[in-house]
Amino acid sequence: MRIAVLGGDGFVGWPTTLHLSAKGHELAIVDNLSRRWVDTELGIQSLTPMDSIQERMRIWKEVSGQSLTFAHIDVATEYERFRHWVKQWRPQVIIHLAQQRAAPYSMKTDRHKNYTVNNNVRATHNLLSSVVEADLDTHLVHMGTMGVYGYDSIGITIPEGYLDVDVTLDDGTQCSREILYPVSPGSIYHMTKCLDQLIFQFYAKNDQVRITDLHQGIVWGTHTDQTRKHEQLINRFDYDGDYGTILNRFLIQAAIGYPLTVHGTGGQTRAFIHIQDSVRCIELAIQSPPKVGDRTKIFNQITEVHRIRDLAKLIQKMTGAEIAYVPNPRNESDENELKVKNDQFTELGLQPITLETGLLDELIEIAKKYQKRIDRSLIPCTSLWNKRVRERMQVLSPSPARKAQ
Amino acid sequence: MRIAVLGGDGFVGWPTTLHLSAKGHELAIVDNLSRRWVDTELGIQSLTPMDSIQERMRIWKEVSGQSLTFAHIDVATEYERFRHWVKQWRPQVIIHLAQQRAAPYSMKTDRHKNYTVNNNVRATHNLLSSVVEADLDTHLVHMGTMGVYGYDSIGITIPEGYLDVDVTLDDGTQCSREILYPVSPGSIYHMTKCLDQLIFQFYAKNDQVRITDLHQGIVWGTHTDQTRKHEQLINRFDYDGDYGTILNRFLIQAAIGYPLTVHGTGGQTRAFIHIQDSVRCIELAIQSPPKVGDRTKIFNQITEVHRIRDLAKLIQKMTGAEIAYVPNPRNESDENELKVKNDQFTELGLQPITLETGLLDELIEIAKKYQKRIDRSLIPCTSLWNKRVRERMQVLSPSPARKAQ
Repeated sequence: MRIAVLGGDGFVGWPTTLHLSAKGHELAIVDNLSRRWVDTELGIQSLTPMDSIQERMRIWKEVSGQSLTFAHIDVATEYERFRHWVKQWRPQVIIHLAQQRAAPYSMKTDRHKNYTVNNNVRATHNLLSSVVEADLDTHLVHMGTMGVYGYDSIGITIPEGYLDVDVTLDDGTQCSREILYPVSPGSIYHMTKCLDQLIFQFYAKNDQVRITDLHQGIVWGTHTDQTRKHEQLINRFDYDGDYGTILNRFLIQAAIGYPLTVHGTGGQTRAFIHIQDSVRCIELAIQSPPKVGDRTKIFNQITEVHRIRDLAKLIQKMTGAEIAYVPNPRNESDENELKVKNDQFTELGLQPITLETGLLDELIEIAKKYQKRIDRSLIPCTSLWNKRVRERMQVLSPSPARKAQ
Repeated sequence: MRIAVLGGDGFVGWPTTLHLSAKGHELAIVDNLSRRWVDTELGIQSLTPMDSIQERMRIWKEVSGQSLTFAHIDVATEYERFRHWVKQWRPQVIIHLAQQRAAPYSMKTDRHKNYTVNNNVRATHNLLSSVVEADLDTHLVHMGTMGVYGYDSIGITIPEGYLDVDVTLDDGTQCSREILYPVSPGSIYHMTKCLDQLIFQFYAKNDQVRITDLHQGIVWGTHTDQTRKHEQLINRFDYDGDYGTILNRFLIQAAIGYPLTVHGTGGQTRAFIHIQDSVRCIELAIQSPPKVGDRTKIFNQITEVHRIRDLAKLIQKMTGAEIAYVPNPRNESDENELKVKNDQFTELGLQPITLETGLLDELIEIAKKYQKRIDRSLIPCTSLWNKRVRERMQVLSPSPARKAQ
């Protein structure tokens, strides 16, 4: 199949591209390389040294014999160029990862909030608009997030996107209806993924576009079978307070003797998935597309659920690392329960990689290997969610002037 | 109070500004004048001759003694300028009407779809971002639409924004929850108002912004008590297939002897409100704001419900006009039932102006007075909702080449 990966230079996009290319599909990467510009903006770099996209593609060709195509297009701002590209290349599947994907980054300042909304909404809508305009029966596979559901425990296992509810009609009888699970996003980033859902709902209904939305958990790991094949195929590995995801951050902190930074009580419970499973799930989703006229097909792309402080304790047990309970920069519940359905992927044959699978050691090895590249000052999360959090933080860490008194 | 009206040069914005100014409030209009540019783009003009915003303001000062402020800012694209303006002027209330508001316009081409999404989402988000950044306790009043609920009759009276549902928990017990009414927008325009709802939900929760969302029905009429005071204060009156709203279009068609264009069977049932009530409702919403920390307050801003073909028959009876049942350019159900709650406004004292109130005659008089300004070729709605509708239309009206065969 001809598969386009929008955001194919990113953390999930690059290993996805290689995984599908290794399976013999024809792959094109469409990317504005914005993630590299964000590195520059924030003065951070991936723990792992990443080559240019062009160089990575050259190495992949050497290693696998497979060619990749690269189009340097900003899907959010270059609608005309993108539509033209779609009409020319005629992808049968488009994997949409062309969005700003870090919650803390999306909350840094008004500029970052605006950028995240503008970029993410426009990328999604331009994509749909282009596919309709090109009159293609392309299957769109979008990377969503578990965060659309929110973390208000009400005693139900989170279903895959849709919730059955009972509504009382005017005549007093009850009627069962299936609705999109009511959203409760915890950041501007998560909010944009909720907006995406409604855009998908509209285009599936009005234009019968075939769409799959993957509500992914927190990704951990860095290597997949393909990125392991050559040092220059290595995936990015973020450790900073904005882009580093929780489990990866703990492992890096453990590797360099930095206390594991647990926000609040660590009572937050979240869903996780290894990067290798992430790319496998995307492949499974491609193999099992919705039919023309179907509503958006939603999968929960997760394999296990853990409480943050339990993860910290697990890493502590493995490595002897200290744990630092730090004030929570986010606006979220201290403690929550979480149960999540993921039957669809297991029914399609996914064999999950869990924490017990032994890949934690590999990550600590990678972190140790590249630890000289780490700037310890970038490890704390400095994005504060709102005014109340900022005020709380000021009380907890008084300014130097106050300390002097 | 200091009240800013974003989109204060528009069909609802202008009479709202005058209404609140007449009540003694301090009013500022923020507008990019885009609606006038759309007139230019489409080669249409308001049935009523409109002066420039500056001239209108001068006349209002003469008539009422009240000054209005005007800031020519594009809220969607000039974030920095708008934020600066908000910080300077410090509005206590902001009425947000700065959005592209026509469903047919939003469906014309991919360019119009993209413009509507980009403009509407960015305007809303930039507004919220500015208010948070300025650290003001401003009450935001947004013009939404009844169209967010959709028109799938399931046998319930549409509540005001929120729906009580029962959810079955894991332990088998039932739990009652209040959720945002599940949306079902019928056009890109309506979809943007659904996106707005989620942006409001997030900012009300994360930043405790006080927000009121008015889910308005189809507006009819053109005059309010203030616009009647001077010919140069006249409100715009759209008759074309893109911006003309259904009842106003029928009245104009009747006035000039053009058959009343009913889409499909005319079995669509919709909610209506007169422009005079629209501005009164906005005033009532301002007087009854949500408290800090409240969820978004949602009103159904409607006064009566009618089936389209019944309206056409009513106008026919009044005027003797013909009715033309034309193929429906939209993707919507032929027939639907509709019942809508609007208790909140009636409890706040709204005395609805209904079709029986006699204002239909006034509109026909206005239409007759300015009928020379009408371009009859612009009356049909030429925006087609999707590929299937386009194909259906081609079968119904074969091309000239086909006719010749």
